[in-house]
Amino acid sequence: MRDVAIVGIGITKFGELWDTSFRDLFVDAGGRALKDAGMDGNEIDAMYVGNMSAGQFIQQEHVASLIADHAGLVPIPCTRVEAACASGGLALRQAFIAVTSGIHDIVAVGGIEKMTDILSDQTTGALVTAADKEWEGYVGTTFPGLYGLMARRHMHKFGTTEEQMAQVAVKNHKNGALNPRAQYQREITVEQVLNSPIVTEPLNLFDCSPITDGSAAVILAPANKARKYTDTLILISGSGQASGTLSLHDRESLTEIPTTIQSARTAYEMADVGPKDIDLAEVHDCFTIAEIMAIEDLGFCEKGEGGSLAEDGKTALNGEIPINTSGGLKSKGHPVGATGIAQAVEVVSQLRGDSGKRQVDGAEIGLTHNIGGSGGTGVVHILERGD
Amino acid sequence: MRDVAIVGIGITKFGELWDTSFRDLFVDAGGRALKDAGMDGNEIDAMYVGNMSAGQFIQQEHVASLIADHAGLVPIPCTRVEAACASGGLALRQAFIAVTSGIHDIVAVGGIEKMTDILSDQTTGALVTAADKEWEGYVGTTFPGLYGLMARRHMHKFGTTEEQMAQVAVKNHKNGALNPRAQYQREITVEQVLNSPIVTEPLNLFDCSPITDGSAAVILAPANKARKYTDTLILISGSGQASGTLSLHDRESLTEIPTTIQSARTAYEMADVGPKDIDLAEVHDCFTIAEIMAIEDLGFCEKGEGGSLAEDGKTALNGEIPINTSGGLKSKGHPVGATGIAQAVEVVSQLRGDSGKRQVDGAEIGLTHNIGGSGGTGVVHILERGD
Repeated sequence: MRDVAIVGIGITKFGELWDTSFRDLFVDAGGRALKDAGMDGNEIDAMYVGNMSAGQFIQQEHVASLIADHAGLVPIPCTRVEAACASGGLALRQAFIAVTSGIHDIVAVGGIEKMTDILSDQTTGALVTAADKEWEGYVGTTFPGLYGLMARRHMHKFGTTEEQMAQVAVKNHKNGALNPRAQYQREITVEQVLNSPIVTEPLNLFDCSPITDGSAAVILAPANKARKYTDTLILISGSGQASGTLSLHDRESLTEIPTTIQSARTAYEMADVGPKDIDLAEVHDCFTIAEIMAIEDLGFCEKGEGGSLAEDGKTALNGEIPINTSGGLKSKGHPVGATGIAQAVEVVSQLRGDSGKRQVDGAEIGLTHNIGGSGGTGVVHILERGD
Repeated sequence: MRDVAIVGIGITKFGELWDTSFRDLFVDAGGRALKDAGMDGNEIDAMYVGNMSAGQFIQQEHVASLIADHAGLVPIPCTRVEAACASGGLALRQAFIAVTSGIHDIVAVGGIEKMTDILSDQTTGALVTAADKEWEGYVGTTFPGLYGLMARRHMHKFGTTEEQMAQVAVKNHKNGALNPRAQYQREITVEQVLNSPIVTEPLNLFDCSPITDGSAAVILAPANKARKYTDTLILISGSGQASGTLSLHDRESLTEIPTTIQSARTAYEMADVGPKDIDLAEVHDCFTIAEIMAIEDLGFCEKGEGGSLAEDGKTALNGEIPINTSGGLKSKGHPVGATGIAQAVEVVSQLRGDSGKRQVDGAEIGLTHNIGGSGGTGVVHILERGD
């Protein structure tokens, strides 16, 4: 199995991009990644694309070949991978596997979602197809509803407070304000979060990630060919993926996500590191409670202490374990299929020392954590600066 | 790169399966494949699923984890792959890559589509999202329309006749009549094809593959571990994938499908064989003209001679190069995401000598050919009996 490096990164502006089509959005991200790697498109051997539901959002399936064509890269193999909001992370994993196998050398992997071309109630309806439609969707559940249940149980069991959840949003907006690609580049206060409209108790509007258009791309190469394209070698040292129940009612606990724990274990073992070795992490904060559960399940603190960790500023940019330096899904935005790749873009930028005002000093090892649905899929990657 | 074998196969009845849910259908196919391999589910390390559009057909995305859960196999990684009607073949390729890489050993790969739970006009609308929706779908094109254009051009350029296309349907129904899993297990005549209702000139109803529910599964293992599960070693000796333009108007020719030619070239080279070495092939006959173009593009005859090949009986069960011994998409049925896996199931069965009344004598090397949309994706695999 060959070592794999990330040699190029690119990301579009995230937001409500009504003037940009799906295919143009992808080519924008991919072109930036190529430019970053100093590479011609004809050096790409294969592509992977993470996309949750272009079928529902823009009535277009078969998007991998569509994109390869629009990018002028046919006939190279291009493969779409879907695992709801973990589609991007999972596409990264498939590309990683393809490079390790030796089947392909230079592989571009992108994530994309165009979510604002339909009405917002249709978007909510499309998103709930990431849950168990027969057991959850048809009875009217939405994703805020599912995470609301988890939040309520976490509050009951561990004493987590609405203020602590609000602190997550405040911190992520503070980071997002420093990210020129973020959908919301402005700071907010705890009071604003607590006074924002209730979406589903105990989650207010500012506890929820937004609906976003956006795309991100990275380019992988075997480590021994990476120096041609990059001065700073960034290796994918660990990759883990796990499947879990789509339905909440099938889980033993509502206060943890087993696929986070399992995929992290696999990734930590492959990279031969532990949570204490991680310098920063991009985690799946689709709701503020999701970030709190994630930092617990990833091992950055004991179970139940995630709320305190946020409250005490330990996950801030200058804290013990900076979380979501990009602004996270909450502030950077959450184009569902793109999110997993956008996380990798941020971590690579940090490990290179290229993150400007939001740079974490001396970052050597970073982690990305991408979740599908309410935890039905978990994907964790560990990225490291190479020698 | 390790050699990879197929050690288990399973397929459900194909048809209008209104009494069976999506998840039950998959578990049926997977369970049969496990039984065939004499394997417990807990020996499976990972799964891949080919599915085109559960999002549109049954309002359910995130189907990989759903299926892993319903099969009792969480937390193993399960990944959905989509490339329209080539989703199954592409899932097989990703599973193949995963085993070659050494990341996983025993990998189950299934294909599934549940197409008859919505009204047939909605099905046609969902299927056209495999074409270029902006350039083809919105102006009212359907898939019979696109293949009708290709048929008309093929007739004009090469003198191919409606009778020759009808011969393809007659031959595939003759084979399907011998396949207890086929949707239509009855023979038809050339007259019946020519007198069936026009769908889109020059294609009549019996030139078109049907709308189908169904699932198929195969189990892969590294070749050096395969003997534990099977007496007859069947190797995946070649795998090719290519992307092409989704839109017909972007192609240089309407009478060939470049992704067939390119993916076949890659697969032939990897397997170190040529068209003359192939003993039988399952090709993507979504329409009768598609089979004619496929056998040309795969190199079984010169360009333009596909119609004659069918007319002369050379593609029949006892012909020079038996094509679609299963009945093909036309008679066996075409649950779009399952088709690529069902093709592999048929070829493995033939290479094992287990195909009963439709057995091709002495078959040693077989080929599967799976197309997405009107040719936007092509996937070709070559399977061989090992020593």
